[in-house]
Amino acid sequence: MIELPDSILNTVKSFSKLPGVGHKTALRQVMSMVKWSEEDLADFSSAVEQLKFVKKCDECGMYANESLCEICQTESRKEPATLCVVETISDLMAIENSKEYSGLYHVLGGVLNPLLGVGPDQLKLDRIAERVNKINIENVVLAINPSVEGDATCSYIKQLLKDVNVERIGFGVPIGGSLEFLDPLTISKALENRKRL
Amino acid sequence: MIELPDSILNTVKSFSKLPGVGHKTALRQVMSMVKWSEEDLADFSSAVEQLKFVKKCDECGMYANESLCEICQTESRKEPATLCVVETISDLMAIENSKEYSGLYHVLGGVLNPLLGVGPDQLKLDRIAERVNKINIENVVLAINPSVEGDATCSYIKQLLKDVNVERIGFGVPIGGSLEFLDPLTISKALENRKRL
Repeated sequence: MIELPDSILNTVKSFSKLPGVGHKTALRQVMSMVKWSEEDLADFSSAVEQLKFVKKCDECGMYANESLCEICQTESRKEPATLCVVETISDLMAIENSKEYSGLYHVLGGVLNPLLGVGPDQLKLDRIAERVNKINIENVVLAINPSVEGDATCSYIKQLLKDVNVERIGFGVPIGGSLEFLDPLTISKALENRKRL
Repeated sequence: MIELPDSILNTVKSFSKLPGVGHKTALRQVMSMVKWSEEDLADFSSAVEQLKFVKKCDECGMYANESLCEICQTESRKEPATLCVVETISDLMAIENSKEYSGLYHVLGGVLNPLLGVGPDQLKLDRIAERVNKINIENVVLAINPSVEGDATCSYIKQLLKDVNVERIGFGVPIGGSLEFLDPLTISKALENRKRL
């Protein structure tokens, strides 16, 4: 195979580390970047370098420009006294985009997984109880994905928070979904969670 | 929608310029990069910056570390006295990967397209005739994709090179292809190009 210049190969190597990007996609993207203007390349390069300065909110774990994120700084967010616990920042953003929730968040950064050495200490689950007391939370919504590990994490948090109302988001048929193509577990959840009309 | 830190938004903006990458994919990739080590980020950043130094071969137009690319520097490549004309560097690499060709190349950088203002001067088609004389090429293989513009480009080059043998690569059913799903043009080309067994 023909040797490409080192600068191309190095960029391909870095690109290949991204999720869903293999060698072929990386090569295609880098070969299109070779045609970019020097300015666009400099912008990209410095933007990537700046990523190391991304901070997380001391309270909830969301990205932040200061020590507190935008959500934790907004006083009106504290009013419904509700805390939504999510696994990742992407999950938090998905909930924000639904515009259905106006309370505070708590990003766990994962779920309990004893096989991978992720216990309550690694996820700092005690911090949830601390925050619940500190900001007088009354309702906790567990927006944790359905899986064996997610279920275990929910049970653990439920036991931790005895004095507040702990709820988990509903499971069932997604909007636009078709019963025909859904897995049996989702359908049994949908039947279980049926509502009177 | 929630505001993300500027460093993330800037990187997402640069990523979105890549082919086949929309805002959603870019965001997903950048959010995974936030978790990278400082070293990996620095490697990526400097690799991207170095892309501006990628040079092209003075002779054929392939990427090169010096003024001539690896292929043009290899003496044995000049022996069959064959020049393969391609549209892009990616096409050149596809042919190299087939390991069926051992001659020289010429990268056009496009095809004739009067509507977009791409004429023989923009593609520097005279350079092909110059090179053919300079290195005593006897055969020219036109590995230009089949399209109206590609066909016109081939005709033009054929007229330009009167003293050498000019051939175009064969068109037909691709290996692994199925007649059932192929377009009528490919099938008529396949019938036209049939060979006695």
